[in-house]
Amino acid sequence: MPVLLTADQAPTLGQLVEFVAQQGLAATLADPASAALKIQGIGSLQHASSVEISFLSNPQLFDQLTHCQAAAVILSEQVYAQLSTPPAFAVVLFEQPYLMYALLAQWFDQHRLQALEHGIHATAVIHPSAQIAANVHIGPHAVIEADVVLAENVRIGAGCVVGAGTQIGKNTRLQPRVTLYHQVQIGERCLLHSGCVIGADGFGFAPHPQGGWAKIAQVGTVEIGNDVEIGANTTVDRGALDNTVIADGVKLDNQIMVGHNVHIGEHTAIAACVGIAGSTHIGAHCIIGGAAMISGHLTITDHVQISGGTAITSSIKTAGRYSGVYPYASHKDWQHNAAVISQLSQLRKRVRSLERNSTSQ
Amino acid sequence: MPVLLTADQAPTLGQLVEFVAQQGLAATLADPASAALKIQGIGSLQHASSVEISFLSNPQLFDQLTHCQAAAVILSEQVYAQLSTPPAFAVVLFEQPYLMYALLAQWFDQHRLQALEHGIHATAVIHPSAQIAANVHIGPHAVIEADVVLAENVRIGAGCVVGAGTQIGKNTRLQPRVTLYHQVQIGERCLLHSGCVIGADGFGFAPHPQGGWAKIAQVGTVEIGNDVEIGANTTVDRGALDNTVIADGVKLDNQIMVGHNVHIGEHTAIAACVGIAGSTHIGAHCIIGGAAMISGHLTITDHVQISGGTAITSSIKTAGRYSGVYPYASHKDWQHNAAVISQLSQLRKRVRSLERNSTSQ
Amino acid sequence: MPVLLTADQAPTLGQLVEFVAQQGLAATLADPASAALKIQGIGSLQHASSVEISFLSNPQLFDQLTHCQAAAVILSEQVYAQLSTPPAFAVVLFEQPYLMYALLAQWFDQHRLQALEHGIHATAVIHPSAQIAANVHIGPHAVIEADVVLAENVRIGAGCVVGAGTQIGKNTRLQPRVTLYHQVQIGERCLLHSGCVIGADGFGFAPHPQGGWAKIAQVGTVEIGNDVEIGANTTVDRGALDNTVIADGVKLDNQIMVGHNVHIGEHTAIAACVGIAGSTHIGAHCIIGGAAMISGHLTITDHVQISGGTAITSSIKTAGRYSGVYPYASHKDWQHNAAVISQLSQLRKRVRSLERNSTSQ
Repeated sequence: MPVLLTADQAPTLGQLVEFVAQQGLAATLADPASAALKIQGIGSLQHASSVEISFLSNPQLFDQLTHCQAAAVILSEQVYAQLSTPPAFAVVLFEQPYLMYALLAQWFDQHRLQALEHGIHATAVIHPSAQIAANVHIGPHAVIEADVVLAENVRIGAGCVVGAGTQIGKNTRLQPRVTLYHQVQIGERCLLHSGCVIGADGFGFAPHPQGGWAKIAQVGTVEIGNDVEIGANTTVDRGALDNTVIADGVKLDNQIMVGHNVHIGEHTAIAACVGIAGSTHIGAHCIIGGAAMISGHLTITDHVQISGGTAITSSIKTAGRYSGVYPYASHKDWQHNAAVISQLSQLRKRVRSLERNSTSQ
Repeated sequence: MPVLLTADQAPTLGQLVEFVAQQGLAATLADPASAALKIQGIGSLQHASSVEISFLSNPQLFDQLTHCQAAAVILSEQVYAQLSTPPAFAVVLFEQPYLMYALLAQWFDQHRLQALEHGIHATAVIHPSAQIAANVHIGPHAVIEADVVLAENVRIGAGCVVGAGTQIGKNTRLQPRVTLYHQVQIGERCLLHSGCVIGADGFGFAPHPQGGWAKIAQVGTVEIGNDVEIGANTTVDRGALDNTVIADGVKLDNQIMVGHNVHIGEHTAIAACVGIAGSTHIGAHCIIGGAAMISGHLTITDHVQISGGTAITSSIKTAGRYSGVYPYASHKDWQHNAAVISQLSQLRKRVRSLERNSTSQ
Repeated sequence: MPVLLTADQAPTLGQLVEFVAQQGLAATLADPASAALKIQGIGSLQHASSVEISFLSNPQLFDQLTHCQAAAVILSEQVYAQLSTPPAFAVVLFEQPYLMYALLAQWFDQHRLQALEHGIHATAVIHPSAQIAANVHIGPHAVIEADVVLAENVRIGAGCVVGAGTQIGKNTRLQPRVTLYHQVQIGERCLLHSGCVIGADGFGFAPHPQGGWAKIAQVGTVEIGNDVEIGANTTVDRGALDNTVIADGVKLDNQIMVGHNVHIGEHTAIAACVGIAGSTHIGAHCIIGGAAMISGHLTITDHVQISGGTAITSSIKTAGRYSGVYPYASHKDWQHNAAVISQLSQLRKRVRSLERNSTSQ
């Protein structure tokens, strides 16, 4: 069951309709008397309880209305007209139920955020040279090193470590246990999830004349634009000389690895477990599926879509969708096919030879 | 060398035989006089030192008995009879040496755990509204937010952050530096390893009418059953509306990514580096190999085995084993075969054409 | 822009030339008068500002010299001779510009490190039984458990947790938020990045007689040699009975998973996101590309190179390069080829049948 407000904190259905009206969306109540209903949360058709609001966006879920326990459901006029009997729930009429859901989910989440404690916790360790703007929250056991600059309304979660000289723009939030190394630059309205590490050394070694590896010091840093979200345990390495750059509006899911000197263009969204090797430039408005692997020193143009699990080993100059995952099968079938894969080049020779014979006849 | 107890802490061989007897296993000593031997730890045949006990379970390792340094070795009667000379070590006779090893390893590990400090560390930050049951341990610099409920014998490691409203059942242990977001529910006897993050936002964005991405607030949470183990740096995201659910007895290795609204059925075991995209349901008693990737919105039935590295891109309705990894080869051979893969569809056409010619002759 | 020293902290160009002379490298200034120039940092040809030094190593970047803003550039005599007009920057003449860059980058980074605060922070929690050598730094909110041994010049970052009995050799540095479990052994001059977890339980379970899984306690530990670097959020599990071993000079990038009882030989370098399953032995001087997956219980000999993304499912006895990634394509082309892959075994049969017909004619 999702997070619920208490009955005291909860808005009425009428207040929620008013809230979306303020965003320019004209929703109406099928029964004006339902305006007084208290709504403590938002849930799916299948699981919403009698104190929650739900919505029907996908027509295939129409049958779920029958057993829906929600206090209220957002429906389009068209769907409402299809109901054969008066429903057990209050009805909010709106043409784009998914959009209204998105706004209300945001509303409930914001409400929760506003209830969080503010201020600078007594256990936080803050270097005297750090510049902390008004209304900044710093959680317990956080560490803010020398010359850090935190703009207004920045929120630093418990146990975060913000390295020397790092700058964070207005309204950016760090969830607990985030590490920012030294001199990292982060824009406004970003959200960094727990466990992510920004600005660790890029993987730079040269063969040492006396054997083994000589470390190439990584003296660049990381620049992150505005409105960027970075998932849990994702790592973004600092540049070797120039910076690693993540542009405005980029969304990174969990456990992504961004190598040194990578550039990711505006509004590109990358699903979990993707690895991007050093110095690769990814364009704007790309969508990259989970567990894709992208080699180093490539250029990928704007508006490229990469399917999950695909290994990108050369640059992509044309927008469009690219794939490359070997299709799975039952283990037995796969064994048979895999055996042929190891002999493909031979198989092609056999076909060529047959073709020659066939032509010569 | 594994962890050793000091000679003072160490049990005698006789005490260990008594301990397994209490579990219903009748082991005997080949020489009763060896009961007084002090046993400080448990090790492999190859590396156990003269204060440790070892075991022979795999018949292929028989020759290792010759140079074994262990104080004592667990052998089956059959193996014992094969020894041509009296061994340098004491012999414990038991028909299932691996089972006795498992019990003794547990015993030594439990002993270490019991020696750990208890109580609530003075540096832990605990919200006054949190409910802390008897015998709870909270390590240094841990943070327990508002309305958290910790049941009896819960152990919270150093530097953990437990978000508001989260509930943890009896005897569950969090290793150091675990993050639980708000409202997460965790059952009894679970073990969460360092760096894992439970309840971060699922990756939910809708194209924004004005360009870029609009965040879909993630108002569901995560429910974890009893006897679940979660590996280091694994992430389990909270649900968008409904919850992400991990059933009783599930074992997750390190660096696994569980997307929002995923369900994992009872006793399913998943090896490291697996990614599971959002809303996928995985059945009970499945075994998933390392680095497998599972697409979103799929249903995988019970008792499915997936080989390591396999990309599962469609639902699986029949129990059994599934595979899909492209076999590796020397780089040169791979280059030849890979070139053909990019022309497979063409190759099939050529075969068809040959077949047509062949038939028409 | 990379990290810059202040003008006060900055060396002169002459001092930098002297510094490399002390390392046995004879660089000279094209114009001796440039020795007085203050150099605040090091940058790339394209982005270095007027207070930084740069270098030209790759001849393809020659044209970037035209617009280079750097205060000074390291050039070979040969490249210097090709300049048609006197450059806007001071010129340092040296035959191996990349080598001089590597030394100077190290110099600037070392300078930054020396400026860091030292000593044991008042908020660190240190067990009285821990042995702390001279000149050890322990950051805020770090936790040092019982019987830990820290040698001279060890540096423990903020929020690290060092488990009971763990030993760390001279000059080793832990960045913030690293977890070392109990009894881990780490050599000298290692660098562990933020979020890495060393010594969590290996993934060891046996089917339980009453259903589900019985945990096999992991009583081994982890041994790490000298000069090892471990990337952000990488995990190295403790051994089941014997130890997991990482030899001298090994370099591990971010988000790598090293399973229990794995051995990695000297000077092997492994790129990000690689997973290595339990009990596999990897030789010395290997290079493993990003996102490769290596199955358990394998032996890989010395001097093996594995291409990124390759799944290694059997032992490798011969040095050389191995690959195995399915080549990507436009989604449409891939669909056509992927369909054939699922029928490869059938295709081979068709070719065989054609061959038989062809021979019989």
